[in-house]
Amino acid sequence: DCQAIDLSTISSKDLGKLTVIEGPPNIPFHIKRVFYLHDIPPEKSRGSHAHKELHQLLICINGSFDVALDDGSSKKIVHLNALTVGLHIPPMIWAEELNFKPNTICLVLASDFYDELDYYRNYDDFLAAKLIARSIDSHI
Amino acid sequence: DCQAIDLSTISSKDLGKLTVIEGPPNIPFHIKRVFYLHDIPPEKSRGSHAHKELHQLLICINGSFDVALDDGSSKKIVHLNALTVGLHIPPMIWAEELNFKPNTICLVLASDFYDELDYYRNYDDFLAAKLIARSIDSHI
Repeated sequence: DCQAIDLSTISSKDLGKLTVIEGPPNIPFHIKRVFYLHDIPPEKSRGSHAHKELHQLLICINGSFDVALDDGSSKKIVHLNALTVGLHIPPMIWAEELNFKPNTICLVLASDFYDELDYYRNYDDFLAAKLIARSIDSHI
Repeated sequence: DCQAIDLSTISSKDLGKLTVIEGPPNIPFHIKRVFYLHDIPPEKSRGSHAHKELHQLLICINGSFDVALDDGSSKKIVHLNALTVGLHIPPMIWAEELNFKPNTICLVLASDFYDELDYYRNYDDFLAAKLIARSIDSHI
């Protein structure tokens, strides 16, 4: 399930701080791609899709925002406002980012390169896939 | 040599901007590790080392700073202040980050996991290794 992970931060009183993300065991995947959302109008939301295979780690580098998470049967909202916390979003979670404060930067570390075929962009398709997955699980 | 790379940024007037770094061909290496410097006192510098094998891409996510680059025979300073530009630092370049504005965040994408044996932390050792490398090159 989705999990907020305290990132490894090395503090030095004289030289500032260094936050490092290498992959396992700190986060549950290897990093292949990096992107960041910026200059987002405050009233807009981003995301609103799910991934079939991709793992992502969301980090609020500046400002703050909310992430609405939906596994097809339950929903929750996580508020991100610290660059030392990463929110792990595993595959098959419908996620939306919203309530961006001005100058917010959302850094995303992803487990694979971009692949449009890995996306569910339609919520009903996502729900249908979840139902099929649960049905298979319950028959094993 | 060190090179400032314009990163791939997808602008949407209504939804803000998305800057993506995937690896080749956009940057000359695959990403394995991510770290960022933050809360750096303005009068302090960071870096002051070289790497034997590691490639790095430095991105100024917020604020601004300078990077002093030294290949053992010539020096230059690059000013970074835009999150859509990445400075590629290949192996065997002595680099120092300095003149940090308040609230500066320096994102670094690295080609490999942390390995203390990959560092030159002593400038004279770095220069000696450069001299040996040049001597070998000139005899081939």
